[in-house]
This record gives sequence, structure tokens and C-alpha cells, in this order.
Amino acid sequence: MLSGGVGGARFLQGLLHAQGAAGTDTEITVVANTADDLWLHGLKICPDLDTVMYTLGEGIDHERGWGRRDETWSVKEELAAYGGEAPWFGLGDRDIATHLMRTRMLDAGYPLTQVTAALCERWLTPGFGDRLRLLPMSDDRVETHIAVADDDAPSGRRVVHFQEYWVGMHAAVPAEAVIVVGQEKATPAPGVLEAIETADVVLLPPSNPVVSVGTILGVPGIREALRATTAPVVGLSPIVGGAHVRGMAEQLLGAIGVEVSAAAVAEHYGARSRDGVLDGWLVDTADAELVPRIEAAGIACRAVPLMMTDVDATAAMARAALELAAPAPPTRPAG
Amino acid sequence: MLSGGVGGARFLQGLLHAQGAAGTDTEITVVANTADDLWLHGLKICPDLDTVMYTLGEGIDHERGWGRRDETWSVKEELAAYGGEAPWFGLGDRDIATHLMRTRMLDAGYPLTQVTAALCERWLTPGFGDRLRLLPMSDDRVETHIAVADDDAPSGRRVVHFQEYWVGMHAAVPAEAVIVVGQEKATPAPGVLEAIETADVVLLPPSNPVVSVGTILGVPGIREALRATTAPVVGLSPIVGGAHVRGMAEQLLGAIGVEVSAAAVAEHYGARSRDGVLDGWLVDTADAELVPRIEAAGIACRAVPLMMTDVDATAAMARAALELAAPAPPTRPAG
Repeated sequence: MLSGGVGGARFLQGLLHAQGAAGTDTEITVVANTADDLWLHGLKICPDLDTVMYTLGEGIDHERGWGRRDETWSVKEELAAYGGEAPWFGLGDRDIATHLMRTRMLDAGYPLTQVTAALCERWLTPGFGDRLRLLPMSDDRVETHIAVADDDAPSGRRVVHFQEYWVGMHAAVPAEAVIVVGQEKATPAPGVLEAIETADVVLLPPSNPVVSVGTILGVPGIREALRATTAPVVGLSPIVGGAHVRGMAEQLLGAIGVEVSAAAVAEHYGARSRDGVLDGWLVDTADAELVPRIEAAGIACRAVPLMMTDVDATAAMARAALELAAPAPPTRPAG
Repeated sequence: MLSGGVGGARFLQGLLHAQGAAGTDTEITVVANTADDLWLHGLKICPDLDTVMYTLGEGIDHERGWGRRDETWSVKEELAAYGGEAPWFGLGDRDIATHLMRTRMLDAGYPLTQVTAALCERWLTPGFGDRLRLLPMSDDRVETHIAVADDDAPSGRRVVHFQEYWVGMHAAVPAEAVIVVGQEKATPAPGVLEAIETADVVLLPPSNPVVSVGTILGVPGIREALRATTAPVVGLSPIVGGAHVRGMAEQLLGAIGVEVSAAAVAEHYGARSRDGVLDGWLVDTADAELVPRIEAAGIACRAVPLMMTDVDATAAMARAALELAAPAPPTRPAG
């Protein structure tokens, strides 16, 4: 599974729930987006890796969907009192311990993949053993920056880190361009290509198609691996009824010239039979009328409820995705 | 004033109180011990600088005497859950913000003196303007290590950082030796020698004679500056009635072969007239019988109450120290 943060983590919970006891033999590799990562106050912060890790390790704040539960905010308060940078970023005290551990290991020379594995020994190993692996998409620095209009700048635009656009500015101004710094020189993290190559199924959860799944696909080699794998590749639309389930994301589709529709996103990913990466695509029942258009693009499509309102609803989505990936064998004719 | 942590900071509060409104023209330079400093979790921690800064900036936890008031401990709890190093060290969340700011500036290449000045802009500038300067004793890395007996080690001893001995082991085993790593190559921080040279009076508060005042005096150039200044140098005994006011310190005097007595510490510092650094020394009234012995060593001595029970008692100690430094002019004979 490729994954962004909150949406990917919730879908993964549903997938695990859907597998139930039968899933105890299932091996899942989660390849998480790291283009949202940032350095703040000397700390390396990996929001998507942490959201997946905390969600599956029962450490997440369920209401916010990110960060630690029972969180305190003393460090953030004090950093602001010192006039520290980026006071808009939600940096909780418990969360900071993760960043301190991570930064220390990175400074010691360990690649992010190994650092992530070490952190997961606390969060994932007790519950999942070796069956659930969390990998960053790359050990290299890849960072999404957003160009926004700025009348005060000589060029008329200003480029900010994705987190500043998303969290600091609440995506309240149009994104004129998405620039993924370092992407063309990045290589997939160890294990990523092998996981795609040897998978039985590859899932694209309803994560952001531009700054989550899009940045993973943009790491040279990953798109090619998805096109080459023998596993079916099935995605779930993050757009429901012509609106993004997580609202602000619409700004980003506009920046890459993609219409805000479940069909347009499917066409953007494209069919594997036509230079794309998808074999199947789930849209919400509200978008059922788009199914023929998507199938016309060479992508198998079903309309099912796609709102992750609770873990049962999400598990049903996961089952629908797995069914689309591997249709039940036709029932043997009677007699 | 040379200063350790808690004792030095409390004495400084008394000194400021004693000066009162009359002290608004007084310029005070505090040269703080940095040999207790340590790196933990990738953060540079300077306990004595911070204790002075927080105490004078009204941010200290009065009960503990160190660290921030209204402190929370979430980061420490989480670091321990990750199996992080030194779980015994009291690293509060608010305090960590200071260490993050400091570490960031040090990593950017600023020397500790400038980093300290930047942090003091929050804590000291609003209340004191330019009248109170806090300087580290050195910008160089100087670290007190303690040798303790260890039957499991081939040499029969083990060397630990001062903080591990003091905080981690509660100084519960004898200190066999005090090793101040880096001291002989250190140079005094910018401003330290000039402050001593141009002072009207130099005060040694009742800080630890081995690991606080002793390490400052050990930075090449500082002892010489104290011997050369035209200012009187007056100290206050941290030993009262043959016991250290802050108990564990007795272990350290033993390690350098100095008897636990107000007179022995004075003799250890020595008289300026005899290759030492002291002109005057205050002992507690409980040690009044030691005054002749100390004066015989060439050091002017008075016995006054030396327990810093509250700010008024501490202010009285500061006044007594200033009086010993600059005796009131003899009253003019009547007529």
C-alpha cells in the first residue's frame, strides 16, 4: 500500500479490520509519503510516517487524526515565547520525543528507513511482529513546495514549504504550482521496489493524489515498478461527489490542472494498459454515474460507499478494493 | 560574580534584593560554570546557565530550585518509552524548548556566549536591560567527569559524566577523582577577563568549590585575572558547621583531598597575598571559631548567618560580603 497520512492510516486500519483473524498471515508493506517532511527547531519531522505509526500503534489522537493522544503543548508554547519559527505547526510534547529520537539517529548517520524501523519497534512490533512493515518512500530528501501569489514579491509569487501552505496558511490562497524539490534525484528506499514487485495486490488508499500518492509515484522507479508488477493495482477515490473528502486538497488538484472529480483523478493516474498505474478504481456511490467514463479509460470501476466514518465502513471499503483486485472466481454452474 | 547553579542563582537574587533601588545603576556580570553541561538526546543542556537565567527571569520552579515552574514531563516520559538514554535526568518540556533554541543556534555556528545572550533577551533583558550580563565561563567544551569504584571494570574504576554521578547515582558512592575534560585547553569566554579586570568587587557565592567555582577557576586565565584585578575578591562558605549546605557536595571535596570545613575551603582557595584568590571569606556564625584560623591564612573573615532560607536572609549575606569587600570608611573623630 502507498500511503499519505491521515487518510492512508485510517484506510489501513480498515484493511486490518477487514482481514480479521484471517489476516494474521497477511504481510503488509506500507510505503509512506515523506515529501511533507520538514525540519523545525532542528528536529526532523515526518508527519505521514508518524501518523501511520501512531494510528496502528494505538498512540494517535483519534479526534484530530494526527499527533499523540493525551498530548501536552508546553514546548510549543515556550518556543513561541522565544520567538521561534513556525508557531503555526502543531508540535506536541509527546510527538517531540519521536522527533528527538529520529533526529538523533539521522545525525548518527542511519538512513530514514532504518530509523523508521527502530521507531516502529515501539509502535508496531508488539502488535504486528514482522507482518507490518512501514517504509519511507525514499531515504533522500524530497520536499513539496507550493508557489502562491504574492504581490509584494518581484516575481509576483512566493514559494513556501507544503506545511506552511497547508498548516500555516490553511491552503486559503490558490496553489499556483507544486514543486517537489529533490524528487528527480531521489531513489526509492530499500525494500520499496521489491515490495511492489512481489506483492499480491497494491492498494492506493484515498490519500491526496497530488501531495501524498503523487509524490510517491514521482520517485523515479516507483511508477515503473507499479506498471511492471504482476499484482493488480487498485485505488480508492479521495473525491466524493465532486468535492475532496479532506477539503483543502482541491487547491492542489487545480495547481496540476486536474478537475476535482473521482473520474478525473482516475484518468490522471491512468490505466496500466495505457501508460498509467491503475487496474481498478473505487468511486463513491454518489459518483456512480462516473463508472462508465472511468471504465472507458481502461480502469475497472465499482461504486461503493467511500466515507471512512468508522472502522466498519472503512473495512467494507478495503474488502471492496480487494474484491476489485481479485474478483471471486465465477461460481461453478450447478450440476 | 562567579556562579554555579542553584546556590549561585539564589545568592544573586539576594544580592539584587540588597541593592534595591540603589542598585539600578549597578552592573553585574555573572560568569557561570559550564562544566556541568551535557548533550542528551541531541540537545545541549547548560544546567547552571539556565538555573541563573530562570531564577532571575522569574521562570524557575522555586521548590526544586532548578527547571521551569508549571513544568510538564511528557517528552521525558516518551523518551523513556523509546528506551532513550539517561532517563534519570530531569528534562522538563518547557526546559526542552530552551535546549532546542540553544542547540539550533550552536549548530548554526554561534558560540555559547552569543547563544546565552540571545536566550537572556527573553529572560533578563525585560527586567534588567544591560545591567545584568550572564556569561558562560568558556565557549569551549569543558566537562566534569567523576571516577567511581567499579569492581566489574578491569581498572577497578569507571568514569562517568558529572550529571550521571550527581543526578543518576545521587553521588551515593565515593568520588575517587574529579577529571575536568578539556579544561586545560579552554579559554575564558569573551568578556570574562575584562569583567574581572574592571570590577569594583568580585564575589564567589556559596557554590560548590569543586565542580562549580573550582571549574571556573580552572579555566586558564581566570585564576590569574582574579589575582591581578584591583577589585577585592570575597567568597561565602558553602560549608556550614562542618557539613555542606547542599549535602552531596562533601563527596567531591573528599575527591580533591580537602576537609569538609569552612576553613579548609578558604585555605583551598587561598589568600591573594599568598598565591590564592581570596581577600575575604564569610563563614556561618556556627563556624565563628574558625575565623582566627582563616585570618591566619591571610584572608579577612567574618562570621554571619549563611543559610539562604529566604531572600531577606540572602540579602543580608550579600550586604555582609560587600561590606567585607569595602569596609565602611572610619567615622571621623568628633570635633
